[in-house]
Amino acid sequence: MSVLKGNAVVGQSGGPTAAINSTLAGVIRGAKEAEKQGVIKTLYGMRNGIEGLLEEKLIDLTDFFDSEDKLRTLETTPAAALGSCRKKMKSPEDDPETYERLIDIFRKYDIRYFFYIGGNDSMDTVSKLSAYAAEQEYELRVIGVPKTIDNDLMATDHTPGFGSAAKYVAITMKEILRDISVYNMKAVTIVEIMGRDAGWLTASAALTKLSGGVAPDLIYLPECAFDPEAFLSSINEIQKKQPAVLVAISEGIKFADGRYVGEGLGGRKVDAFGHVALSGAGKVLEQLVKEKLGCKVRSIELNLPQRCASHTASATDIAESSGVGFAAVRAAVSGKTGVMMTIDRIPSEDYLVSFGSANIAEIANEVKRVPLEYINAEGNGVTDECINYLSPLIQGEIRIEYENGLPKHIVLS
Amino acid sequence: MSVLKGNAVVGQSGGPTAAINSTLAGVIRGAKEAEKQGVIKTLYGMRNGIEGLLEEKLIDLTDFFDSEDKLRTLETTPAAALGSCRKKMKSPEDDPETYERLIDIFRKYDIRYFFYIGGNDSMDTVSKLSAYAAEQEYELRVIGVPKTIDNDLMATDHTPGFGSAAKYVAITMKEILRDISVYNMKAVTIVEIMGRDAGWLTASAALTKLSGGVAPDLIYLPECAFDPEAFLSSINEIQKKQPAVLVAISEGIKFADGRYVGEGLGGRKVDAFGHVALSGAGKVLEQLVKEKLGCKVRSIELNLPQRCASHTASATDIAESSGVGFAAVRAAVSGKTGVMMTIDRIPSEDYLVSFGSANIAEIANEVKRVPLEYINAEGNGVTDECINYLSPLIQGEIRIEYENGLPKHIVLS
Repeated sequence: MSVLKGNAVVGQSGGPTAAINSTLAGVIRGAKEAEKQGVIKTLYGMRNGIEGLLEEKLIDLTDFFDSEDKLRTLETTPAAALGSCRKKMKSPEDDPETYERLIDIFRKYDIRYFFYIGGNDSMDTVSKLSAYAAEQEYELRVIGVPKTIDNDLMATDHTPGFGSAAKYVAITMKEILRDISVYNMKAVTIVEIMGRDAGWLTASAALTKLSGGVAPDLIYLPECAFDPEAFLSSINEIQKKQPAVLVAISEGIKFADGRYVGEGLGGRKVDAFGHVALSGAGKVLEQLVKEKLGCKVRSIELNLPQRCASHTASATDIAESSGVGFAAVRAAVSGKTGVMMTIDRIPSEDYLVSFGSANIAEIANEVKRVPLEYINAEGNGVTDECINYLSPLIQGEIRIEYENGLPKHIVLS
Repeated sequence: MSVLKGNAVVGQSGGPTAAINSTLAGVIRGAKEAEKQGVIKTLYGMRNGIEGLLEEKLIDLTDFFDSEDKLRTLETTPAAALGSCRKKMKSPEDDPETYERLIDIFRKYDIRYFFYIGGNDSMDTVSKLSAYAAEQEYELRVIGVPKTIDNDLMATDHTPGFGSAAKYVAITMKEILRDISVYNMKAVTIVEIMGRDAGWLTASAALTKLSGGVAPDLIYLPECAFDPEAFLSSINEIQKKQPAVLVAISEGIKFADGRYVGEGLGGRKVDAFGHVALSGAGKVLEQLVKEKLGCKVRSIELNLPQRCASHTASATDIAESSGVGFAAVRAAVSGKTGVMMTIDRIPSEDYLVSFGSANIAEIANEVKRVPLEYINAEGNGVTDECINYLSPLIQGEIRIEYENGLPKHIVLS
């Protein structure tokens, strides 16, 4: 295969994570290597993903080539330094103008390499764009680099960004365990964790077991139907032994009839626009416990910090996220296109990974759920197998540079 | 004054903080010194504060004397290692049995030193107990050691535990600032921060200004009446310049008529028991923005992590919290009783403190609010004077020992 010379563009898309900028740093390091080899000349960053690209909002990232210090700060800056978007691309048949415009921009800037860091929707963009470019016979190497705290992408052992979110959840659960144990009175604390369709992040609450031996008493994932009666009787059983009960739930848990718990126990409430009103699964269960058990109860929604708390990032996740970005450039230079990069776990006693890639058409729009062998028989906890899968992903702490008492971040302007 | 020989007891009371165990470590170190001097023999810890003491639930803390390693882990373990209680003591006239029982227990265990680490209610206990012991001519040195994330105790420049909570709030706000800035669309994010009567912790959200220059756009404290119209028009003004608006509010903000914002904008809702139903100020303002401005809006309640996130503890706070516990023992041995220990800021260019004490009867049941010169004229932000007061309290990071990816804690059993 001949060497494809030209410029490259990188974008970030979807919800922020603590590690998406580390992947950006990895792509920058990869582009720097390719520049030395005379393959890639300029690396552009698209502002706000493909939306910004369509408006030619590009910034030159080549400046970063000479500053390993800045790259290290970028690695530990949360959220998407280039900005993000939530654009769901139509197919070329339904929206030919957008695709034609993209090819025009690629020609104008001599762009031959396209790196897109994102989740499921972003992989769909990569899939459509690579097929279209091939059809138009515009030689473009299109690579998706996974990113999501949900860990729900197919083909990869786990997703960059997940380990740091899991570490944040486990640290916070461990601290909450200390907090709720100080009073000698019956109390239930319900912690609502992100995860609409897959319970990976909620399962991570169980990691406290490997550090001090104590874990949340009950863990409910969207993979199992939620039974309110069983939930209440489990709390009663636990309170025969201890006063304080800690419960971890995914935001996306559902009743057996398919309704979200966050819709409430009554009939489905619909707002003026016909949208189902979700008050949050935690709030609904808080109300249930208050009414049925009468003990002190509190619900906590971990909310945005789960995806942006880079001060507790997993060193394993940050290193892998950067590594997979670097590997993406190498894969593109070597001729790959239409693929998503993957992290592959190498079977061995120690935790070892390599970076690979998978055909993107088979990945986009699929959701990887927590397998049933990772969930206990009662559907209210996770198995040791699950904990063993998760544990390596949160290992190691990163060194953060502080400035006036707070973590230093890089802001691209 | 003659040396008072005997045993000592220490307890923790009220809500957990990230630094209350550091103060316990300081008291243990102080007792160790006093033991070497032949003054204090045994240091007991009361389980669940004064409630446990009344049941003679005591543990011998003398074991810690020989383990500086364990003391350092204790310093960075969140919440109250001895357990806590929320007992509000009646006066000796209304409940003579309790006070008689306490003096009996003191005699039985030869307790001559009583250290109580807590907030306002705990200082009230210290005040009543020291007066009663004096009246009964039972020689007892009773010392209160302040602790509260609310920073609302009189006489002390600031309270142990506050600096760590403030650091957690500022770190989290800085990370949320990154997160909400990634999309190029109008959005309002409202962060609800602990503080029923005093806005110190909410004011700390402004500390991000000293680290990167960006701060929440609007900050509302309970010290000023909250005006919903002014709030909405401020958001409109800000959105002329930028799409994403970040708002920090205290949980205890009130309308001009004295009702909590958390009670909602309609009439006062009362539950079956006649309690005012508080749905949370953040949720109420989220609904208001949704209805009146129609843009994307999200509310985040920082909740328990504010008071138990010891992984982000302020090194300044941890050192002072331990130091004031140590100073408490020295003060007691030198003859002080019926006092609360204080942290006094020494006027100078650098940040310097000394530890002092103040007559407890003048402190108990008073609330120190944020002074008006710390709040801007519009009542929607804080002044540089406020930021200068707060900034030293969050400086420095502690070295945390990690175990399987999570911070190591000490659990007393």
